[in-house]
Amino acid sequence: MTRETFRVTFQPEGRSVFVLRGTKLVEAAGQAGIILNQPCGGEGTSGKCRVEVLESAPAPTPADSEHLTEGELSDGWRRACQLAIENDLVISVPQETRFFEQMILAEGKGAWYPFQPNLRKRFVSVPEPTIEDQRSDLDRLKAAVGADELEAGLPLIRALPSILRQEGPQVTAILEGNEIQWVEGGDTTDRIWGVAFDIGTTSIVGALMNLTNGQSRAVASRTNPQVHFGDDVVSRISYIEKTPDGLDKLRKRLIACLNEIIGELCDQADIEPESIYEATAVGNTTMTHIFLGVDPGPIAHAPYVAVVRESLDVKARELGLEINRNANLHMLPNIAGFVGSDTVAVVLASGMARQEQVQLAIDIGTNGEVVVGNRDRLVACSCAAGPAFEGARIRYGMRATEGAISKVVINEAIEVSVIGGGRATGICGSGLVDAVADLLDAGVIDPTGRIADPETARELPDPLRRAILSFEDQPSVVLVPAARSKTGQPILLTQRDVREVQLAKAAIRAGIEVIGAEFGIVTEEVSRVLLAGGFGNFIRRSHAKRIGLLPPIPTERIEFIGNAAATGAKTVLACADCRREAERISRETEYVELATRPDFQTCYMEAMVFPPPS
Amino acid sequence: MTRETFRVTFQPEGRSVFVLRGTKLVEAAGQAGIILNQPCGGEGTSGKCRVEVLESAPAPTPADSEHLTEGELSDGWRRACQLAIENDLVISVPQETRFFEQMILAEGKGAWYPFQPNLRKRFVSVPEPTIEDQRSDLDRLKAAVGADELEAGLPLIRALPSILRQEGPQVTAILEGNEIQWVEGGDTTDRIWGVAFDIGTTSIVGALMNLTNGQSRAVASRTNPQVHFGDDVVSRISYIEKTPDGLDKLRKRLIACLNEIIGELCDQADIEPESIYEATAVGNTTMTHIFLGVDPGPIAHAPYVAVVRESLDVKARELGLEINRNANLHMLPNIAGFVGSDTVAVVLASGMARQEQVQLAIDIGTNGEVVVGNRDRLVACSCAAGPAFEGARIRYGMRATEGAISKVVINEAIEVSVIGGGRATGICGSGLVDAVADLLDAGVIDPTGRIADPETARELPDPLRRAILSFEDQPSVVLVPAARSKTGQPILLTQRDVREVQLAKAAIRAGIEVIGAEFGIVTEEVSRVLLAGGFGNFIRRSHAKRIGLLPPIPTERIEFIGNAAATGAKTVLACADCRREAERISRETEYVELATRPDFQTCYMEAMVFPPPS
Repeated sequence: MTRETFRVTFQPEGRSVFVLRGTKLVEAAGQAGIILNQPCGGEGTSGKCRVEVLESAPAPTPADSEHLTEGELSDGWRRACQLAIENDLVISVPQETRFFEQMILAEGKGAWYPFQPNLRKRFVSVPEPTIEDQRSDLDRLKAAVGADELEAGLPLIRALPSILRQEGPQVTAILEGNEIQWVEGGDTTDRIWGVAFDIGTTSIVGALMNLTNGQSRAVASRTNPQVHFGDDVVSRISYIEKTPDGLDKLRKRLIACLNEIIGELCDQADIEPESIYEATAVGNTTMTHIFLGVDPGPIAHAPYVAVVRESLDVKARELGLEINRNANLHMLPNIAGFVGSDTVAVVLASGMARQEQVQLAIDIGTNGEVVVGNRDRLVACSCAAGPAFEGARIRYGMRATEGAISKVVINEAIEVSVIGGGRATGICGSGLVDAVADLLDAGVIDPTGRIADPETARELPDPLRRAILSFEDQPSVVLVPAARSKTGQPILLTQRDVREVQLAKAAIRAGIEVIGAEFGIVTEEVSRVLLAGGFGNFIRRSHAKRIGLLPPIPTERIEFIGNAAATGAKTVLACADCRREAERISRETEYVELATRPDFQTCYMEAMVFPPPS
Repeated sequence: MTRETFRVTFQPEGRSVFVLRGTKLVEAAGQAGIILNQPCGGEGTSGKCRVEVLESAPAPTPADSEHLTEGELSDGWRRACQLAIENDLVISVPQETRFFEQMILAEGKGAWYPFQPNLRKRFVSVPEPTIEDQRSDLDRLKAAVGADELEAGLPLIRALPSILRQEGPQVTAILEGNEIQWVEGGDTTDRIWGVAFDIGTTSIVGALMNLTNGQSRAVASRTNPQVHFGDDVVSRISYIEKTPDGLDKLRKRLIACLNEIIGELCDQADIEPESIYEATAVGNTTMTHIFLGVDPGPIAHAPYVAVVRESLDVKARELGLEINRNANLHMLPNIAGFVGSDTVAVVLASGMARQEQVQLAIDIGTNGEVVVGNRDRLVACSCAAGPAFEGARIRYGMRATEGAISKVVINEAIEVSVIGGGRATGICGSGLVDAVADLLDAGVIDPTGRIADPETARELPDPLRRAILSFEDQPSVVLVPAARSKTGQPILLTQRDVREVQLAKAAIRAGIEVIGAEFGIVTEEVSRVLLAGGFGNFIRRSHAKRIGLLPPIPTERIEFIGNAAATGAKTVLACADCRREAERISRETEYVELATRPDFQTCYMEAMVFPPPS
């Protein structure tokens, strides 16, 4: 049976997602890639998460009435943290309710980071020289900008006499940090854009930001074209080591992909690539090494070190990025060979490095990175979780795209929710966690992970017992029968799939426990768990605890922070000072190599077993 | 008649010059390009100008005996400031008596600038990574060098893993300012070279310096190949403006010439160009603009401004210089469109910007630049002297090379000294000044510059009267008769030549007077006059005063400071802090545009007339 799903559309993006009845609006928004601000941690006490329901608004809850006026309520305003979806909805999300915009935009409104980009434009009039004023072109320009200590590079100096004489005397200076990056004729202060990249092993996301006001303007993503050369970082490195010019090949593919994303972003925003004056990028250590053309070889072999940890600034044109020829690319710093700048970006974007409370951030992508700590101390590790949560190595696994089972609910029978609302072709990570969690609760899977024998498990409800069959000599559970799948084949959860889930979740949980012990905190006592990354934002929090992926902490303390790596990349685009903070996070975060920890194997073995029902 | 000349050979260079009887050794050394230290200003009071006379030492003077022991005197040691040449000599000049070495080398010995190059090498052992020490390659390198705040560029980062693994763990780091410029396998701390260029309109000089100890190792020079495109900067700029790709053409010729010089320097020192890790350069504003590929057009047209005044650092490979691919080129700053970094270098090398006494520096090349001032204030101007002192626009003029009359002495008759000791083919700047000065004293030329009419000038000695003849309808003086010249033609000084000398010397003298007035000092009262540049070092000081090129100040206060522009370029190679001083000189020197000064025309007209005999 396929359970009832509803379409929720978010404006002004016009992005729709399909969710099961009762899903919280905050989670639906997360699925749509829109992370809502929840200062209350989901407890309904702040009233700062308001959204406007444009069609079919549900009746206000008492908590809605407490924080909203009658006029607002009748206009459709509701509090996102209170809203459970019971019908199709169209929602408008204002800027101030958006996590990221809230974070950077509104200086003086309690925002974490001020809008202070590294790049700014200044429209000035450069006086023409006279016999009484024989200052050089550059000296007159600097004086007009009002900053004598600015530097200028040779390319600008070469272009300056003709810019001033043919397009001046009114010009716009583009200032980057301590440098005059370029000068343009006329007033172009309204055109200044930046692009932020999150370079994942599997997916690459680019976001275009208007650097006059810090607003995100467009997002585009692509599958990393390097996946043809290996699913994970180790197989990519192995390809590089075996192939002449392998590094250059992978690098060029990546650059071509980034340029495609740039093209799409410019199309979406109707701007020219020349108007993009700065880029920032994050990624895991291997991806950033390849991007920069630095041999990632040492990362793959003991003792697994990076070549470079620090942040780097490189002229974008030297890397081949097709944006303004003078644009700078700022690459955020890494932490270790397997904890990259994407993790630094997560820590930065979450604000955890500034708070007194101890928080736990988990970014599950092709690998899992975990960080615990506060403003005084941060400890991180990398968990070899494998790609099970991305659907790989699962018999009917797939990524979270159209046709994937993204939710599974088991009461008497098995009900699934399919991305896009059509028939299922496979199952993605969040569906997998749902299935395992509910099958555990139903007794179909026992705490050691074994699928019950239908002959002996007489206590199971009939529909569940009938769903168990033997497939390729292993017990399996039919999630969608052949008659209702898109492929005409049944979609199964096999015994081996359950083992893969156990290995993956045990790796992450053991990492959590080891760094918790290293930090000196009982993991249940962290003030917040922050779930980042594609998988993190689709998972059901109670189920992540049910299978033991997360420690048993109250669900309301578990928060989705979206693609926080990309948010971090945007943060340093909008806030130059945050680069120093990122550098501090990179330098001061203690990296724990799990392989060297005597307690890791014990934690890992213990985490393999599923916890008892709560 | 050709007067008696002697050969003086300087060791360890092995360089010889030919000089007239009675010439001071200091002047002979200057002709050989060796500038002696004269802390006493030639007054014989310091004893720090000692040299060793290897053959035919003259009898010691009382001043020699005062400062040297009997043993030293019998070994041939003499004081250079006291020694007048009366026979052929072979002289050994120790390091401490050399002006430049004295200036930079001997920290703690009263030197002006410490030896503190921007570039240094550090031999270190970079520990291999272990599972307990997973710091990145770059972090381990930085820790080994002992400076965590150092920066590294992408090219080094790309090369680092293979350098450390294939050539490490013992490596040599090349540190440049705040950056790790490169890393080499093994211990290469004994190989670190720098090159300093003085890019003149007519001549280019390169000097190779051992940056482990600051010693100059080789010097090479070439005629600027741009002379084919015009003699002076204005004609070069005009060529650039009229020719497609003209700037690039001139730039490439120049770079090719610099690379030839680099090749010759490396041959002389028997080193590889890759061992040269830094370059510095000075030149007039037009030459430095062309060198950098910056359009010098604005310099040639009112209001005559430079595009860039500041110093610049550019990767040498970006400019096409064939030295180490990571080497930096430091271009010293300019002052104005017609007062370039060569003048900044002269001021820097002379030390005048650090002293309380007011000094006057004059650098006569194709143009003449004049600076007056002290540590509190500096005033500069550019004098359109024209190239007369380089032998151009003079009927039998030539540059100071073999065959040129470099000295003229007139008593009853005219006696000349020829460079190389053979027959004369023409006359160079210093000979020209000698000729005019002595002809003035003899009454052959009157104070207005007119050559006497032999018919009426009965008071002249017969040989002189017979030397005056009419050539191309103008009165002329035969300096060397046809029978004794190399060409078989007489070598003449024509009336028009005298007018050229008047114009040239008046331009410089008027510049001196105008900036003296601007500074507020009577020019006769400056504490020292410093003569720089090729011409400055060959001129006879008393004759420069006789023709009115210099104000009437005591001859002992007039000093030769050699090719001080090149010395300045070497200074900033040896002393990184001096770059800041150069920047200060560039920024604070007040440039006086003579064309705008109402007093200039008056000074110029007055300076045209020759002064009365003293």
